Amino acid sequence: MSVITCVAPVNIAVIKYWGKRNEELILPLNDSISATLNVEYMRAKTTVMASPTFKENKIWLNGKEESFENPRLQHCMKELKQRARKNTDVVNWNIHVCSENNFPTAAGLASSAAGYACFVYAIAQLYGVEGDITAIARRGSGSACRSIYGGWVQWHVGKSDDGSDSFATQIAGVSHWPEMRILTLVVNSSRKKCSSTDGMRRSIATSSLLKYRVDHVVKDRVEGIIRAIKEKDFKAFAEITMKDSNQFHAICSDTYPPLSYVNEVSRRIIELIHAYNELRGTTKVAYTFDAGPNACLYLLEEDVPEVVALIQYVFPSDTERVEYFKGLPINPGSLSDELKVKIDIPKQKPGSIKYIIYTDVGEGARVLNDDNEHLLNDCGNPKRLN
Amino acid sequence: MSVITCVAPVNIAVIKYWGKRNEELILPLNDSISATLNVEYMRAKTTVMASPTFKENKIWLNGKEESFENPRLQHCMKELKQRARKNTDVVNWNIHVCSENNFPTAAGLASSAAGYACFVYAIAQLYGVEGDITAIARRGSGSACRSIYGGWVQWHVGKSDDGSDSFATQIAGVSHWPEMRILTLVVNSSRKKCSSTDGMRRSIATSSLLKYRVDHVVKDRVEGIIRAIKEKDFKAFAEITMKDSNQFHAICSDTYPPLSYVNEVSRRIIELIHAYNELRGTTKVAYTFDAGPNACLYLLEEDVPEVVALIQYVFPSDTERVEYFKGLPINPGSLSDELKVKIDIPKQKPGSIKYIIYTDVGEGARVLNDDNEHLLNDCGNPKRLN
Repeated sequence: MSVITCVAPVNIAVIKYWGKRNEELILPLNDSISATLNVEYMRAKTTVMASPTFKENKIWLNGKEESFENPRLQHCMKELKQRARKNTDVVNWNIHVCSENNFPTAAGLASSAAGYACFVYAIAQLYGVEGDITAIARRGSGSACRSIYGGWVQWHVGKSDDGSDSFATQIAGVSHWPEMRILTLVVNSSRKKCSSTDGMRRSIATSSLLKYRVDHVVKDRVEGIIRAIKEKDFKAFAEITMKDSNQFHAICSDTYPPLSYVNEVSRRIIELIHAYNELRGTTKVAYTFDAGPNACLYLLEEDVPEVVALIQYVFPSDTERVEYFKGLPINPGSLSDELKVKIDIPKQKPGSIKYIIYTDVGEGARVLNDDNEHLLNDCGNPKRLN
Repeated sequence: MSVITCVAPVNIAVIKYWGKRNEELILPLNDSISATLNVEYMRAKTTVMASPTFKENKIWLNGKEESFENPRLQHCMKELKQRARKNTDVVNWNIHVCSENNFPTAAGLASSAAGYACFVYAIAQLYGVEGDITAIARRGSGSACRSIYGGWVQWHVGKSDDGSDSFATQIAGVSHWPEMRILTLVVNSSRKKCSSTDGMRRSIATSSLLKYRVDHVVKDRVEGIIRAIKEKDFKAFAEITMKDSNQFHAICSDTYPPLSYVNEVSRRIIELIHAYNELRGTTKVAYTFDAGPNACLYLLEEDVPEVVALIQYVFPSDTERVEYFKGLPINPGSLSDELKVKIDIPKQKPGSIKYIIYTDVGEGARVLNDDNEHLLNDCGNPKRLN
């Protein structure tokens, strides 16, 4: 019997991935760039156990058994087995997989990226796979390739038809820009949404603006934001981040029928950030939105107290403080009366923002060495079920 | 003393005008196309009186005196005087102008287009201006040039730097497509918005997608929709209309900071129309949105009862029926239980749509020959003030 438990982080794109040039291989239309978030506060955790006694492959996600026949999962398994270098016995055994996120999947926080990164990373350890595994994680969920590494990560579009050059690399490590912080604002929403896969497919089929974005806009932005990250130029970084988020949502609107991922609360957050930056006379905060209404704000540590106070003022909580703030400890600053008056955004309904996760840039996927961390018991069954 | 009273209609663009290549002359970046609405239900009405006894030019808009020094108004006056062919006395007299809309200006229903069309048309009559006056109306408000004519109208982008070839022509007359109907859904909104002029300026300065739209998308759409109008091909007409509305709002999202004219109710209307078209198995209704949250729906007369019943079901009124429906008489159909079940859109808060104006395609600007219609009394003062 062989067992391993790993964790993998969430990543938040600042140059967006939208559209596959090859659906089977999950090859993107353009490069994308993200920061990897601290694995402490938002992560997938996965235990993989291989045993000659297991009659079949099994997988449990967040306490519920799911089918192992999922084609994306099968693609990852096939590539991992081809690249296995040790434990040929282990590679032939069946496996049990148990995976959990420490944040609500329903919150729409890119759980599949962390999940597939963790799955691929754990099995790669078990099978002794050497070299790059980001291209394998990509077969599970495109943006999973960016969750293998910590710090600032680039997923390269690649040129090859077989996808061999569409992998992720690190632009800068975790310690490169230590002042950077991320606030994830989890927005209340009951709206059902079109899955990213379906949405991308529809955009490719119908949006003429997407083609223009891919051919003429993204390249300069990628170069610009890499420069901004390397030089720690927050203003340049923030402006490219916001423009790219806005352009992604423009592509969604140009899709037919249109895709609408952000909602009225998201739009108020956008307004608030622009109003705040204007009042402060420089770009202090950047927003970015993926295929859902939650906002991720990038900002520097020194600005966190005031920005959190401002968010709390415009989007009051309807719960206790302890539930409103998650992640790193937050001490909201006091909001000057001047700011309250000048920020001309009406107070929103309590609970419009459900909670805030405060975090920083962190390391990539890693092994947990404590046996107590395993999510499977010695028989290969989940310790907890839903 | 010389006096005239005219009315001019509202027009609703199906190929959108967004962005000026010359701000002073109000020259657009691309052709646009609209239908002119029945002047009975939504119109500007303007009385112009010229008299040798008037000490100065004066203008009242919706019962409030405004400045005659407005540069756009001055540009129109200058061109009208240059083109005057009769009554040289009258042309040298000062004038009093009184103008009223029969729909709330605040509703964001392109009142400036009807207003300037009416102003220019009335003075052109008074001064005996011959030939095209749409290019003069354009100097007041770009889309005003399309409100001079009835039926289906095209505003040509033109090539000349002096704007002389940027005027409107009729694609088809009022009687060409007699089954066409328009439902204007006036959406509740307290949101202040960025004016079209400022919004356009910001889009030109920041949206790379706008340039692509202008250079590579609009031309095919203009050709396609003219063909659809001429052939009365509703499906083709409707799809181009919706795609162009969506692309306009995509450009708004790609603008920095982003412009957001539609709101959550607008988005629900979009969802509802797509869901309805899908259930009906063909495109029965088209939506289009200008720089505001109100929807204009194009549809054929035979489909009005069911569509109105559906809108009433999803967006219940919070007022009496008599106030909810304006314009042509409406008899909402009964909604089949099947449709209620299959349209998977939750009922919205009563009053989300304030009221519905039901109308058809109508004639352009014209003179009212009844002296009782004058908005100014014999002394040149408004009969009514606010």
